[in-house]
Amino acid sequence: MSAPIDFYFDFSSPYGYLLSEKIDALAAKYGRQVRWHPILLGVIFKATGSAPLTLQNPAKAAYSLLDFERSARFMGIPYRQPSKFPLATQNAARAYYWLDDEDCALARRFAHAVFRALYVDDRDISAPETVLEIAANLGVDRSLLETALQSPAIKARLKDEVDQAMQAGVFGLPYVVIDDQVFFGADRLPQIEKWLESGGF
Amino acid sequence: MSAPIDFYFDFSSPYGYLLSEKIDALAAKYGRQVRWHPILLGVIFKATGSAPLTLQNPAKAAYSLLDFERSARFMGIPYRQPSKFPLATQNAARAYYWLDDEDCALARRFAHAVFRALYVDDRDISAPETVLEIAANLGVDRSLLETALQSPAIKARLKDEVDQAMQAGVFGLPYVVIDDQVFFGADRLPQIEKWLESGGF
Repeated sequence: MSAPIDFYFDFSSPYGYLLSEKIDALAAKYGRQVRWHPILLGVIFKATGSAPLTLQNPAKAAYSLLDFERSARFMGIPYRQPSKFPLATQNAARAYYWLDDEDCALARRFAHAVFRALYVDDRDISAPETVLEIAANLGVDRSLLETALQSPAIKARLKDEVDQAMQAGVFGLPYVVIDDQVFFGADRLPQIEKWLESGGF
Repeated sequence: MSAPIDFYFDFSSPYGYLLSEKIDALAAKYGRQVRWHPILLGVIFKATGSAPLTLQNPAKAAYSLLDFERSARFMGIPYRQPSKFPLATQNAARAYYWLDDEDCALARRFAHAVFRALYVDDRDISAPETVLEIAANLGVDRSLLETALQSPAIKARLKDEVDQAMQAGVFGLPYVVIDDQVFFGADRLPQIEKWLESGGF
């Protein structure tokens, strides 16, 4: 069994959503597992002096909105530009790690549900209530999660995950690592597939 | 006959080189011509507050160098990272427009030769002598071109081309326009092909 693939993303990143809809099936095709790492793009932007695509110059911002939707159509993935965007994803990411410690398959279902709540149903996933509702719909004990989201431990956990990612060299998202080979951006999916297929090229 | 495709690039951009090796044949497959527009990425960076990939944070710079070479291998295009990079491309771009006014097919051959001189043979294409030598090898009168490169007219021409591109919304390179649909980056080549094939998606 080959080593797992690492997939770093922010729930607020459209290209992260697009990759999230493809990466597990692609990895499975080549006998690989994927470790998901929801982190905070805002922290990375601050460290690297960058900014969200839609808050850069007007022409690039307008293009980015067009490209999110066109890339989704190209990849056969449903997409609707969220009315609140970009938005804070700390609550969703903390809930992910809390669930992942108990049941990684459940955490994966939760992550897909969060992405789809934002990019299909235009829900405000920055709100704790939305995150709790998404988890509850998957059978999670709402009050246990609500308490956990307030705990210093889970806040420290997410901070650690972000710090570790940055120490590992993550400079932007989505960011995929396969056997020390880095792929940045959902548009590197064809290269990811070729790499998995041929063990390098 | 459908309208020509517009292809904006800087001779110093690796992704522009990669696209330059594919765009004409792809367009021809769908009965289209391509208008090439060498412009100056540095002017766009200044206007948009951006910077070359390899002069951004160290992790992103290192990744970019890796990605240039890997993307070239993925696309089946020879590539060697130039020792002088990025570099000024005013002379090459001015020579292009001067040639294009006389013989557009010759200008196209010159553009390919400039890109390959930089990305295959590691030549310093910022030097006027290199540009003159490349043109002379294609049968161009070296002294006529040398004189032309010093003329205020050709300097104004390149400035106009850059201004027009920016007025048209070009915010980065390479940048392709097909029937008012914009595609940014060599990695949008599969979307460009699908768009040409199906007339939109």
